[in-house]
Amino acid sequence: MSLLVVGSVAFDSVQTPTATRENVIGGSAVYFSYAASYFNPVRLVGVVGEDWPEEHTSMLQQRQVDMAGLQIVPGSETFRWSGKYLPNMNDRETLEVHLNVFGDFDPIVPEDFKNSPYVFLANGSPVVQMKVLEQVDNPQLVVADTMDLWIREFHDELLELLEKVDGLVLNDSEAKLFTGEENLIKAGHKILSMGPRFVIVKKGEHGAMFFSEEQTYVLPAYPTSEVVDPTGAGDSFAGGMMGYLAEKEAHDIESLREALAYGTLVASYNVEDFSLDRMQQIERKELDERFATYKKMLNLG
Amino acid sequence: MSLLVVGSVAFDSVQTPTATRENVIGGSAVYFSYAASYFNPVRLVGVVGEDWPEEHTSMLQQRQVDMAGLQIVPGSETFRWSGKYLPNMNDRETLEVHLNVFGDFDPIVPEDFKNSPYVFLANGSPVVQMKVLEQVDNPQLVVADTMDLWIREFHDELLELLEKVDGLVLNDSEAKLFTGEENLIKAGHKILSMGPRFVIVKKGEHGAMFFSEEQTYVLPAYPTSEVVDPTGAGDSFAGGMMGYLAEKEAHDIESLREALAYGTLVASYNVEDFSLDRMQQIERKELDERFATYKKMLNLG
Repeated sequence: MSLLVVGSVAFDSVQTPTATRENVIGGSAVYFSYAASYFNPVRLVGVVGEDWPEEHTSMLQQRQVDMAGLQIVPGSETFRWSGKYLPNMNDRETLEVHLNVFGDFDPIVPEDFKNSPYVFLANGSPVVQMKVLEQVDNPQLVVADTMDLWIREFHDELLELLEKVDGLVLNDSEAKLFTGEENLIKAGHKILSMGPRFVIVKKGEHGAMFFSEEQTYVLPAYPTSEVVDPTGAGDSFAGGMMGYLAEKEAHDIESLREALAYGTLVASYNVEDFSLDRMQQIERKELDERFATYKKMLNLG
Repeated sequence: MSLLVVGSVAFDSVQTPTATRENVIGGSAVYFSYAASYFNPVRLVGVVGEDWPEEHTSMLQQRQVDMAGLQIVPGSETFRWSGKYLPNMNDRETLEVHLNVFGDFDPIVPEDFKNSPYVFLANGSPVVQMKVLEQVDNPQLVVADTMDLWIREFHDELLELLEKVDGLVLNDSEAKLFTGEENLIKAGHKILSMGPRFVIVKKGEHGAMFFSEEQTYVLPAYPTSEVVDPTGAGDSFAGGMMGYLAEKEAHDIESLREALAYGTLVASYNVEDFSLDRMQQIERKELDERFATYKKMLNLG
């Protein structure tokens, strides 16, 4: 079932305590698409400058990602982000952000993409996210991501968006900021009361929590000792989750739980190397094998 | 199967962002014993001063806790601890510690207790923990807890102890301190290589990790929005775990996993009120019900 993602396409420069990578392919829509592509074709809407290499586009196309929605703006530069991870590999410091062409991103959903039943609004201004929603025809499942900047500066717009989406994904510190609640269970329920059918709170190395009217639960992260670069973990989590749902053509409560698990496992691979490097080495088979191990690890008889 | 615990018996004074309790019953051996008593009788070895009220002793006796190993030292005062929780309810500040009679604790295991097959060495100096081990006859399962103070000041004694125990339980920051590893999976495996058959790293609100030669896994905490006082969470976790194993008379890898889950659930009740208050309101039935919910929450089909 068709899956649309709208979000950033970027060059990242990442420093970790042991290594550095400059100008590698990144951005929320890119991590999402690659992760989702293990399960289902993806339609990407985003924007880049003329410094964007054609081979990045074709690499994604080879992964069933339809790049017809990627605007290339002449005379512009692609979004660039650089950051540095602290020794705990969980906290990071943003060193530089050059929004460049992404600063004026006005998403245009191609005619062919408008019938997408599954939609992911990757991290972006709620105003931009709403513009996307206005262009799609009766999607079945819309999930949005957000971040501290939008919570602080576009609070009302975010609340308006929450009435139109099925699910919201955000991280633990953002959930606390958004609600003023220190307890994540209270925070999750508070966001639930703002409109969405479900809320997912990402806790990085500690896994993810799910909140809906019917169920509250938490799934741990897959225990990996190979954390090389956490960049894109949240987006690859969302990609694995949405890709699985689109493939299964279902978003009932049980499918959502399996999807959360698959999202967790795609993210666990993603952090094992820089950029898309680790994801590019694995196939669906590795995900299914890790799923079997994960399932066993959580099985209480 | 008989279960012995040696540890502190104390009066705690606790401040949280919303409430305060003064001089309530606490201490590692007390939390442990109460938690274990849902599953199995407990034999307690500890020390108090003459300020210790007889009703605390009889309350525990009514919970199948054999108090014959509680030394009451005339002219002395009981160990007192006071602490303050930060708004996140995970981090705390110790305000005062008066070791009092616990400062010279020389554990004497009563003759009747020496045949205990299951032994828990609650948080204490590795020297004291070793003295207990020297007094018990061929126990089947010995698990020890530790803390930053012993890791820093009694490093060699702790290493010596680790060669004699089956399992070590410690929290995440202690595991990092002990090993110099920021990644908990690496830290867990490093401690494993020091001798014990298994290592359990407690992550507070984020659950617990298990490490053995055969298995590495993580179980999340039970999602509760009622976190009133986290004091004793680690000890009630250990009590639930060891009590379950002693009841089941088994400590194979599958039993350990179920025991970890029961420990998690006893702890999830314990934090819902001050001191032993919440645990005193529940029965085994509530634990089994929460176990069923928890199992379902982690079931991936």
